[in-house]
Amino acid sequence: MESVSGAEAGLAAAIERALHGLPHLSVHRDGNALVARTALGRPERVILAGHIDTVPVAGNLPSRREGGLLYGCGSCDMKSGVAVALRLAARLTAPRPDVTYVFYDCEEVEAERNGLLRLSRNSPGLLRGDLAVLMEPTDGVIEGGCQGTMRAEVTAHGKRAHSARSWMGQNAIHGAGGILDRLRSYQPREPEVDGLTYHEGLNAVGISGGVAGNVIPDECVVEVNYRFAPDRSEEEAAAHVREVFEGYQVAITDSAPGARPGLDHPTAAPLLAAVPGAPRAKFGWTDVARFSLLGMPALNYGPGDPMLAHSRDEHVPVAQIAEIEATLGTWLTG
Amino acid sequence: MESVSGAEAGLAAAIERALHGLPHLSVHRDGNALVARTALGRPERVILAGHIDTVPVAGNLPSRREGGLLYGCGSCDMKSGVAVALRLAARLTAPRPDVTYVFYDCEEVEAERNGLLRLSRNSPGLLRGDLAVLMEPTDGVIEGGCQGTMRAEVTAHGKRAHSARSWMGQNAIHGAGGILDRLRSYQPREPEVDGLTYHEGLNAVGISGGVAGNVIPDECVVEVNYRFAPDRSEEEAAAHVREVFEGYQVAITDSAPGARPGLDHPTAAPLLAAVPGAPRAKFGWTDVARFSLLGMPALNYGPGDPMLAHSRDEHVPVAQIAEIEATLGTWLTG
Repeated sequence: MESVSGAEAGLAAAIERALHGLPHLSVHRDGNALVARTALGRPERVILAGHIDTVPVAGNLPSRREGGLLYGCGSCDMKSGVAVALRLAARLTAPRPDVTYVFYDCEEVEAERNGLLRLSRNSPGLLRGDLAVLMEPTDGVIEGGCQGTMRAEVTAHGKRAHSARSWMGQNAIHGAGGILDRLRSYQPREPEVDGLTYHEGLNAVGISGGVAGNVIPDECVVEVNYRFAPDRSEEEAAAHVREVFEGYQVAITDSAPGARPGLDHPTAAPLLAAVPGAPRAKFGWTDVARFSLLGMPALNYGPGDPMLAHSRDEHVPVAQIAEIEATLGTWLTG
Repeated sequence: MESVSGAEAGLAAAIERALHGLPHLSVHRDGNALVARTALGRPERVILAGHIDTVPVAGNLPSRREGGLLYGCGSCDMKSGVAVALRLAARLTAPRPDVTYVFYDCEEVEAERNGLLRLSRNSPGLLRGDLAVLMEPTDGVIEGGCQGTMRAEVTAHGKRAHSARSWMGQNAIHGAGGILDRLRSYQPREPEVDGLTYHEGLNAVGISGGVAGNVIPDECVVEVNYRFAPDRSEEEAAAHVREVFEGYQVAITDSAPGARPGLDHPTAAPLLAAVPGAPRAKFGWTDVARFSLLGMPALNYGPGDPMLAHSRDEHVPVAQIAEIEATLGTWLTG
């Protein structure tokens, strides 16, 4: 079923129908997002979450099986994960912890439209829990937390002049060479957080300057992106960026916090024990950070190779879907 | 009379009427450009040239006199010079050298529309001479020749990657730091050419790079402007730019040659002697370079402060107009 971002209504309705018949779940709908919760009075609550939208179809629907692989738009990112969560929702009538299943819309588009963000604003209580598992593709490995991301504009100033008499001015683009010097000599941290090793990065992602072909420019702006490990808050990250570029004008333009992996959380221990392969740090930013903002640790764990996400030939090994369902089922009932 | 670039027809017609009654001149019209020549069989020919267009009117018409100053659009750049040439054309019925008076259109807009360029293509013979005087504003000082100007795009390449895993890529903006290093450490030449000291410059006038806020960019382009003294040809200038940025991709995008000052030309000597103040080098590019391409030296000499050109309150000292007319008249008849 096609469900490109913004057009998830059909799939959301189908999921709602599948959930409504289940007496052990209470179901809440918010736009094209659905939250289904057990209410067994358990001392702990686990959240399983996944987005139901996909990037635009690229000639890769209808999906098809080829040998042990399932091909098709969303097969990897992340309808296989959603299918696992939906099947667990139906199957686990009396899980060991209480479980909240979250199916949300518009993850593949601008953050302001994100269904999980909307839920966290409209009904934060529905998202309360002790540990969240975001079922984004991780190839069946546990990827803990995520790094934060911050963008800033670092500006070098100068003085305009006609380029025929360049010595009358001060070239801001040449001045921005000092900004690039600091980026080139920057040594990113690789801190260990809750047992996982993160890898930061501070990079120019854009640069612009220039007035006209015969003018010494008086301004050059370098847009930098700082990816920071989850042992740093957004405030600490901003202070670090300002410190690195001391002497230049720095404006933070965009920021999203990281998420601690929470692998030391007691609830996570049996899952860690059950999943083959060592857990690793998640470098990219994911929606686990939204759970982190709600005060709970979160990890990424789902079927499919993340490198295939958004590719025309995205696919997933069918056996991996079943394995992950089995592992999570055992964890949530064992 | 208003004559913004492209709308010089009225002024060109008025100049044509003024010239046609003069039996010592043969007049040629090409669009809104006019060439008037004596044909006295003198061994030398001097060219006096000026453009008749102006930048757009900025509430500074009609022109007005205030004390000894004439205010108004084009008063400085460069209708005062044109008026001097027109009056000399009428007055000097038997000059010592033959004289060619050139009044041309569209100097203040893109080079391809330039009336002097058009004349040099349509009727190069009409522009032949031994020495040209371009009557652009120089505040009554002789400014010899002009520097050439060249633009080039210098590109740093890298390898794209997601900025969450920046170490998988190679940041082209950081790489462009190497280009800025060379610009920052560049020592411009200040060569003496025909007795005048020029001052070169190599500057970034533009920089751009970046794919998206989460992508390590694979390309960064620095646009540089090289202003070169007239002892270097365009070919030599291009070779120099390529040498400075060796190791980077260099594309020459635009180029115009300089012009030697020609102050050592025998014809120039009496003019140099008559004009008060030491001659100086012209740093900016002017149309003297077009005469240089036609094989003759050229200098800039006219009424008005060049720093006032294109300004809303441009003006010219009326006495300077008369002085320059007297100096040129003496030179051309003495």
